[in-house]
Amino acid sequence: MKAATYRGPSDVRIEEHPTPEIEEPTDAVIRVTHTAICGSDLWFYRGQEDYEEGAPVGHEPMGIVEEVGKDVRYVEPGDRVFAGFAISCGECEFCRKGLHTACPNGGFWDGPGVGGAQAEKLRVPQANGTLVRVPDRYADDEDTLEALLPLTDVMGTGHHAAVCADVEAGDTAVVIGDGAVGLCAVLASKRLGAERVIAVGHHEDRLELAKEFGATETVSSRGEEAIEEIEELTYGGANHVLECVGAESSLETAATVARPGGSIGYVGVPHVEDPAFLEPLFFSNASFTGGPAPTRAYAEELMEDVLQGTLDPSPIFTKTVDLDGIPEGYEAMDEREAIKVMVNLDE
Amino acid sequence: MKAATYRGPSDVRIEEHPTPEIEEPTDAVIRVTHTAICGSDLWFYRGQEDYEEGAPVGHEPMGIVEEVGKDVRYVEPGDRVFAGFAISCGECEFCRKGLHTACPNGGFWDGPGVGGAQAEKLRVPQANGTLVRVPDRYADDEDTLEALLPLTDVMGTGHHAAVCADVEAGDTAVVIGDGAVGLCAVLASKRLGAERVIAVGHHEDRLELAKEFGATETVSSRGEEAIEEIEELTYGGANHVLECVGAESSLETAATVARPGGSIGYVGVPHVEDPAFLEPLFFSNASFTGGPAPTRAYAEELMEDVLQGTLDPSPIFTKTVDLDGIPEGYEAMDEREAIKVMVNLDE
Repeated sequence: MKAATYRGPSDVRIEEHPTPEIEEPTDAVIRVTHTAICGSDLWFYRGQEDYEEGAPVGHEPMGIVEEVGKDVRYVEPGDRVFAGFAISCGECEFCRKGLHTACPNGGFWDGPGVGGAQAEKLRVPQANGTLVRVPDRYADDEDTLEALLPLTDVMGTGHHAAVCADVEAGDTAVVIGDGAVGLCAVLASKRLGAERVIAVGHHEDRLELAKEFGATETVSSRGEEAIEEIEELTYGGANHVLECVGAESSLETAATVARPGGSIGYVGVPHVEDPAFLEPLFFSNASFTGGPAPTRAYAEELMEDVLQGTLDPSPIFTKTVDLDGIPEGYEAMDEREAIKVMVNLDE
Repeated sequence: MKAATYRGPSDVRIEEHPTPEIEEPTDAVIRVTHTAICGSDLWFYRGQEDYEEGAPVGHEPMGIVEEVGKDVRYVEPGDRVFAGFAISCGECEFCRKGLHTACPNGGFWDGPGVGGAQAEKLRVPQANGTLVRVPDRYADDEDTLEALLPLTDVMGTGHHAAVCADVEAGDTAVVIGDGAVGLCAVLASKRLGAERVIAVGHHEDRLELAKEFGATETVSSRGEEAIEEIEELTYGGANHVLECVGAESSLETAATVARPGGSIGYVGVPHVEDPAFLEPLFFSNASFTGGPAPTRAYAEELMEDVLQGTLDPSPIFTKTVDLDGIPEGYEAMDEREAIKVMVNLDE
């Protein structure tokens, strides 16, 4: 079968890989119908993170179950399913706690012996816990599938930022970052009832989408100027800050604009050399909570809203490619020509 | 009047300063009867932090009110009082929220125009909000006063660590650091009902005191070995970690031993160049909450326990000096001959 494969920085190719098979009784094998390219894939694409040469890539799978191991009871062949970027058993302490990314029986798609989701087929370990089944009624509705696809990562991640920042009805939330995760964090904040959502980013087109997603105000300036603008809009600082980038500058902005005693939710892997943000963080007594989003924990709740028609993150996909178009998709993301690229293998 | 004065690294002298007077109608002037030398005073004493030459030092005042401005109604001359390390108005958004260290009308004792507490007298701005009155019945009971003195800083700070780490009845808490704050964090954790308190430090005598304060286990190894020991004692990681040092190594230990989804309370000013602790912190999804402790917020609650006889942090004072003995007190703290030094000006 064909799969997108890492060959070095700026070099992702479609190559032939062995077709995945059931290896454990808890495995399923799915035919991937939809997947996506993630902002976090750009770390290895840009050579900023190590990745094994020749390894498959991608961690946002949606597809049709082809085969299941004998211990799999939650799904059966023919089911439309999706999975988050983490594999999880669904029954350990951490899965029960809603922290599936810490499952000791799980792992991540780029781990040893596990495939990548940007491929024709994928072996899914711990299928009972890892997979989410799309109800039959919606299983072939393309619009619904495209709205569900972001639940594999960015929508769950934006929601995690909002949860970690304690966003509740009536709150004012500041979302830092206008990438796919930041835009989903705007949607998540509105969905949790935020009265005001201030989206902070550097791209006018993305901030426009933030407004469509419910942002009441946008800030496009940088550094000190952005901080002043946010502080003015929040009467001195925000009680709820969603840090959706992970860069030094965005962490510093988040820590500085947090109101004393406020909550910062952060979901971008911190890429920090100079930890200057720790000083404003400490002196504001703001909480700093985040990590890899347990998207599995949020899947049912978010899917319910998608099926009801009250949540639709699919406008973040501004480009669609087929399997062979994946290398072109990486280029478009790298050059910021696309906010997020969908891979539709059925097209 | 005489006051301890900073003259450079390792050089604190008793010098003559103008006797403080009421400057604002919200001021009080107190005659200091008890104060202390703080671990955080060692930062400037060791030249690791800038401090104005010739400025008075100390931030843990207890004394007798001598004079009050016309808007002060909470205390009157003759009252025994103490104050935290922060000046606070008691009526702004942040004081109402219990975050007196963020009071925009307040400040800290070492700020411009404000005296130090290691002095014969002290002007107290925002006296209504800043001062805590000791009930008359206990106002001259030396044992009670010595047990109350740590509420000016370290006991409130240890309690803040426990609150930020979400310690509740039945929990297992890991306290990192065996200085005065760490020891008070042990007391605070027990007081909040922790079932197990694991004290981590490098000094056998202090860990002994931690046991007297209620620690059920102690860990005295360092680095990797300490981490392994804590993880074994906590069956894989602790849900409640109290970081009471602020050093790179202790932050890394805290982030590493935190159980996924757990809570880290940190109260030592982070002195960090290499932010390696951010990686385990992120991947554990543990919350990281702390800052300068709003000791004023906790004063009544902790005082109540001291007066009931159920809380006594005074054993952290392992040396007592008079005003002229303050330079010797700094030396003893610097050389770790004393855990914490009390200054008794009435002796």
